[in-house]
Amino acid sequence: MKAIVISIGDEILIGQVVNTNAAFISEKLNSVGIEVSKIITVGDTEEEILISFRENYDKADIVIVTGGLGPTHDDVTRKAVCKFFNTRLVQSMKAKRNVEEFLRKRNRKWSEAAENQTYIPEGAQAIHNKYGTAAGEFITKDGKYFIVMPGVPYEMESMMEDFVVPHFKDKIKDHFVLHRTLMTTGIPESELSNRLGDIDDLLQDAKLAFLPSPTGVRLRISVTGSQKKLCEEKIRAIESKIRSKAEKYIYDIDDEELEEVLGRILSERKLKIAIAESCTGGMIAHKITNVPGSSNYLERAVVVYSNQSKIHLLGIPKEMIEKHGAVSKEVAEAMARKIREIAGVDIGISTTGIAGPTGGSTEKPIGLVWIGYSDNNETIAIKFNFGDGRLRVKERASQAAMDLIRRKILKI
Amino acid sequence: MKAIVISIGDEILIGQVVNTNAAFISEKLNSVGIEVSKIITVGDTEEEILISFRENYDKADIVIVTGGLGPTHDDVTRKAVCKFFNTRLVQSMKAKRNVEEFLRKRNRKWSEAAENQTYIPEGAQAIHNKYGTAAGEFITKDGKYFIVMPGVPYEMESMMEDFVVPHFKDKIKDHFVLHRTLMTTGIPESELSNRLGDIDDLLQDAKLAFLPSPTGVRLRISVTGSQKKLCEEKIRAIESKIRSKAEKYIYDIDDEELEEVLGRILSERKLKIAIAESCTGGMIAHKITNVPGSSNYLERAVVVYSNQSKIHLLGIPKEMIEKHGAVSKEVAEAMARKIREIAGVDIGISTTGIAGPTGGSTEKPIGLVWIGYSDNNETIAIKFNFGDGRLRVKERASQAAMDLIRRKILKI
Repeated sequence: MKAIVISIGDEILIGQVVNTNAAFISEKLNSVGIEVSKIITVGDTEEEILISFRENYDKADIVIVTGGLGPTHDDVTRKAVCKFFNTRLVQSMKAKRNVEEFLRKRNRKWSEAAENQTYIPEGAQAIHNKYGTAAGEFITKDGKYFIVMPGVPYEMESMMEDFVVPHFKDKIKDHFVLHRTLMTTGIPESELSNRLGDIDDLLQDAKLAFLPSPTGVRLRISVTGSQKKLCEEKIRAIESKIRSKAEKYIYDIDDEELEEVLGRILSERKLKIAIAESCTGGMIAHKITNVPGSSNYLERAVVVYSNQSKIHLLGIPKEMIEKHGAVSKEVAEAMARKIREIAGVDIGISTTGIAGPTGGSTEKPIGLVWIGYSDNNETIAIKFNFGDGRLRVKERASQAAMDLIRRKILKI
Repeated sequence: MKAIVISIGDEILIGQVVNTNAAFISEKLNSVGIEVSKIITVGDTEEEILISFRENYDKADIVIVTGGLGPTHDDVTRKAVCKFFNTRLVQSMKAKRNVEEFLRKRNRKWSEAAENQTYIPEGAQAIHNKYGTAAGEFITKDGKYFIVMPGVPYEMESMMEDFVVPHFKDKIKDHFVLHRTLMTTGIPESELSNRLGDIDDLLQDAKLAFLPSPTGVRLRISVTGSQKKLCEEKIRAIESKIRSKAEKYIYDIDDEELEEVLGRILSERKLKIAIAESCTGGMIAHKITNVPGSSNYLERAVVVYSNQSKIHLLGIPKEMIEKHGAVSKEVAEAMARKIREIAGVDIGISTTGIAGPTGGSTEKPIGLVWIGYSDNNETIAIKFNFGDGRLRVKERASQAAMDLIRRKILKI
C-alpha cells in the first residue's frame, strides 16, 4: 500500500513551523509496511486544499491529511473534506463526548467553538482525541482510506498510535519494507564511504543511504520483500559486513540517541556520573535527563558559566585559570576530576570552550573545546575544534563528551 | 513571484529526518516577498525526482530543490537535473576550487569522490559551498529560476543567506507579504480566540493564524500589498488592537524565543541569575546559554538530580526533604533562595517535579512541577500541572520558569 501525506498550514509554507508531523506519520506508516511516496504541504485556503485532494487521491491507497481542524476561523479543512466527498457536516456523538470530557477535565465552559468541534463529515468515523477538542476523521471509500487529523503534534501522534497504526497493522501481511540504521559518530561521510569499499557488492539489491548531521553520519540499510524473515536475514548480513569495516564508529542502531545508549551502558554497570559544563551550558545534562530513569546514574551537574563559579563550586585554583585561561587542558582536567570527587561518583566529565559568536582569538578560535574525563584510574582532556555556529558547537561538544564516556567504559 | 520547494530524500519519506530545510528556505524567501505555494518531498530515485520537476516547473517562477548532491552512490539529483534540462555534466572551476579549499583546510586527500563533486550541469552557475564539497546549481531558463542545493542543512543555509536571498532581494520591489507574530504563553487557544472577539472586524482584509505549541500560542498577522509602508501600518494597527485585549500574555514578537527576551530584560537591568534545576534537568540552563552573551547574566546553574546533591550543593535540610518530599513548595522555595544566596546573584529560580514516565502518585501525579523564585524581596513557589510526556513536561516547566522571571521583573 502506498500513502501520500498532505500537511495543511500557511505556517509551514512561510517557514514558521517545521513539518514534524509528516516525519512522525511517515515513520509510523513505514513501521507497518506502508510506503509514503510523497509528502505535500499546501496553504490554509479551501481551494488549495481541494486541489491537493484532487491531484493526489488517485495516486495512493491511503491519504493522510493533517491540520486545519481547530476551533478558530482559519481552520477550513472540515469544509474542504465535505466538498471533496460531496457530503455535509453532522454532529458526532463520539466527538461530542470527547469535547465534553476535555472541557470538564480542565474546568472550562461549553462555547460556540466547542459546539463546532462536535461536527464531522457525514459517513466519516470520528477518531478520539486524547489531548484536544478536534476529533479525527476516518473515511473509507473507493477501496481507499482517507484520514484527517489535527495539526497539533501530540494530538495527531496519539491518534496515529492508538487508532491508525493498529488499524493497518492487522491488514498488511505480505509486503515488508525493513530498515536498519547504523549510528556513527567521529568520522566524515566521505571517509566512511571509502572505508565501506564497493557499495554494489556490499548491497546487492538492498539500498544504503548516508545521512550526515552535526553529530555524526547515520547509515541506513533498506530491504524490501514479501517475507519478513528473509528481509531480516538480508539486513543482518549487510549490517555485519559494514560492522567489520567501521565497528568502532558505530555506537548504536535505529535512531537511538547516544544518550540512550550511554544510559544503558551506565545502568548495566551500575556506574554513576557527574557533569561540569562550561561552554555546553547544560546541554549534556539536558540530553542525559531526557532519558527516563537517568536519575539512577546522573548524580548531579553544574553549569559553571562564570570563573567565580568554577572556583567556588569546583575549587579550581584561581591561579590555574589566570595562568592557562578557563579554556585549557588544565582547567578541563581539573573540572572533570573535581566534579567526580565532590559528587562521589565513578566518572566526571567536563567541557570548556568557545561557543561563539564572539570571544574567539587566533590562539583560541571559536569552536575550540576541551573535553575532560576522569575516573578512578585516569584524568585526561581532549582538544576538539567544532567549527562555528553556537548551537552546533554546543551539540557537537555534547555528543563528543558522551561518546568519550562510552568509549572509555567500553575500552574502544 | 511564486516558489515551489522540492525536497529530495528517502530519509524524509520514511520519517527518519524532519524536513527543516523546507522551513528555512520558505522563511528566507518570504522575507524577500516571495510566496511559497507548495512544498513537496519525493524519494531518492531519478524517476521520482524527474516527475516532481515536470509536475511543478510550470506552476512556479522559482523552483528550489535540495538534497542528493553528496559524493555517495545514493545522490542522483545532478543526473536528474541534466536529464530534465537535456544537458550534460561539465567540470566547474569554481566548484573545483571549492573542493580543493575544503580538503586542504581539513588535511584530507583528493579522491574520486572529490573529483565527482567538481561537476555541475552545463549552463548552470555554481554556488559556493562554505561548509562542504557539493556546489549549488543556479539555472535561469524560460524566465524562471531553478536552484539546486545540498540537503545538509548548514551547507544549504549558508547558500541561501549568501547567494539566493541577496539575488532576489534586489529584484522584488512592488509586492510585499508582511507577517508579524505575537508570542503568547499561559493562555489556551480557544480562550485567546474568545478574548479577541470578532475576528473579521479586527482584521478586515488581513489574515490571522493561531499556532499552538506546548509552550504557548503564537498569533500570526499577515498582510499583502504593493506598498511596504501601508502594509506596515496595517499590521501595526491590528497588533495594537490585539495587544489591548491580551497584553500580559504576549511576551514578544516574531518568533523570538522567551530566552532571548529574558536575556534582553536581564542585560538592560544588569541583573544576574542562577538556576537550581531538578526535573528540568539542565534544560533551562541549556536554553538560556543558547543566547549569545548569556555569560553576562547567567552566573551558574546546578542540576541537583539526586537528594544528596540538593543537600550537598544547596544545603537543603535533609529533614525538609523527608517531611515534605523533594517535590514540594518548601523544597522549591529553599532551592531558589539558596542558589541565589550561594551564587550571590539578584534572582534565583528553581524547578522540582515529576517528569515521568514513572514516579507519579495520586497525590503527586506525573506533570506536577513546583517552580521557585527568589529575589531580595521575596521567595515564592508556584504549582503547575503540565500533563504528561517527559520532554513536554521539561519544556513547559522551562518556559514557565523563564516567564516567571520575566513577569516578576516587569511586574506584570
